[in-house]
Amino acid sequence: MNFENRLKEHIERVESVIQGSFDGESPAHGIIRESMMYSLNAGGKRLRPALLLEVNKLYGGDEEAAVQFALALEMIHTYSLIHDDLPCMDDDDLRRGKPTNHIMFGYDIAVLAGDGLLNLAAEVMLDTVIKNNYLPNFIDAMREILKASGPSGMILGQVADIKYETESMNRETLDFINKNKTGKLIVAALTAGGLLANAPVEDVALLGKIGEDMGLMFQMVDDVLDLTGDPEKLGKRTQMDVKNDKRTYPMLIGIDEVKIQIKAYENRLMDYLDRLSVDTEFLKELVHFLALRDY
Amino acid sequence: MNFENRLKEHIERVESVIQGSFDGESPAHGIIRESMMYSLNAGGKRLRPALLLEVNKLYGGDEEAAVQFALALEMIHTYSLIHDDLPCMDDDDLRRGKPTNHIMFGYDIAVLAGDGLLNLAAEVMLDTVIKNNYLPNFIDAMREILKASGPSGMILGQVADIKYETESMNRETLDFINKNKTGKLIVAALTAGGLLANAPVEDVALLGKIGEDMGLMFQMVDDVLDLTGDPEKLGKRTQMDVKNDKRTYPMLIGIDEVKIQIKAYENRLMDYLDRLSVDTEFLKELVHFLALRDY
Repeated sequence: MNFENRLKEHIERVESVIQGSFDGESPAHGIIRESMMYSLNAGGKRLRPALLLEVNKLYGGDEEAAVQFALALEMIHTYSLIHDDLPCMDDDDLRRGKPTNHIMFGYDIAVLAGDGLLNLAAEVMLDTVIKNNYLPNFIDAMREILKASGPSGMILGQVADIKYETESMNRETLDFINKNKTGKLIVAALTAGGLLANAPVEDVALLGKIGEDMGLMFQMVDDVLDLTGDPEKLGKRTQMDVKNDKRTYPMLIGIDEVKIQIKAYENRLMDYLDRLSVDTEFLKELVHFLALRDY
Repeated sequence: MNFENRLKEHIERVESVIQGSFDGESPAHGIIRESMMYSLNAGGKRLRPALLLEVNKLYGGDEEAAVQFALALEMIHTYSLIHDDLPCMDDDDLRRGKPTNHIMFGYDIAVLAGDGLLNLAAEVMLDTVIKNNYLPNFIDAMREILKASGPSGMILGQVADIKYETESMNRETLDFINKNKTGKLIVAALTAGGLLANAPVEDVALLGKIGEDMGLMFQMVDDVLDLTGDPEKLGKRTQMDVKNDKRTYPMLIGIDEVKIQIKAYENRLMDYLDRLSVDTEFLKELVHFLALRDY
């Protein structure tokens, strides 16, 4: 198995089902579809779907069903980016090298495209549950994802990110924000992948821990890239955290210390992965790749 | 059975479960909870939950489970109002006699409170499914509601409402907007109520037709009230359709003709209700009440 090929395979698999995920005939269908698809098709790392597909594959799950859950995860991630980019939030006009959704389609349609993607994600998962004879473990996987994205998960992290007081920011608060805003959906990608494939309960629990560490490591790399990365490669403006007066890991503990902690997370993740009952070569390479990524 | 008492009973039942529907300990939980609960507790007619609870009761369904679906419906309705009221949409500052969510909590939190309520609605339904041993008919009921609220239902109607060309508005387009924006969730309230209680398939189909007519009739009354209603009683500003240059039924066909058509819908609804296999006295009185309502 070659790492790049397998990652590419996962990404192509989920991208192949995006097109068929929403159809309709009216002109209104046209506009909302175009707006949702614009952001879904805008590229990105497809990290969450790749994690879900990989774990599902490792434990021998049905790929056709899993790819629908992977698609739903990417819809939820995409909706969160559309709403995060709105003028009333981060007010970003560039995402993945392209104009953000509200720049392309207007503020009102961007709000509705986000709403639509969240709703459609739940529809896609539920349709897959029904198509597979109401399998309880599929329903449990859906629950993992919905709990992760909701007001006690990703949305909670976003609220905490908006409302913290700059002066009183500390490590605990920053971890809380990132665990929820970024981490929960990464955790859900891994645990839902395990649940879909009926992985052993100990493995699902361990996958949850792996997701937590991976989420924080991922965010640390993101913070470093915002400071030192190449805007062209990243497809977005850099130095935005400084500009928006956001407190990030490098600002709290210094960029050298962040790099040390990224390495520590990477090492711990390798240990965790060794304890899973399946062959985690790809996941190990993925962790290494994420720790060193420059885009 | 007394109509007012039974309606009050349904409303009190759903309102009794709102408080327990979202808990959390962090300060961020505090803000997002407060914002979601503010709009959920702002009153309203509770029409959709009342319809679901009534139909579920008529066919002998489990009330404890049904009230969770009724709550989810009201969460979805409430989220749609929060987002509709945003400055980038209808820009309303008053709803049910109170400041709208974004006036109270800010634009960013209002977007997230809407997102949170939609997500939480799906969580509440899925938790009820799991609590009831993954009952397939509960999953089917959940699907009715999610299809109704999504980009081929309520969101589609909202997009059509935003994007129509004022000059070329006609009856067909206006019906399309209202069938989706208002009608689909009313249809889902009735059909989901039937599915939860394992109602006969013919009855569920008929409940769908009843919901369609009820939705259009409801919207016609709404349009009339916007023109001639009492702002104090309605808890919102009137004449907004004229102010926003919106084309409504009275503008297209005249207010007298609208009143004739409301009566025609009412009559047809009575016929449909007679064809259900259960005692529809309450639903008949509800239709009559909706046709004549002045708030």
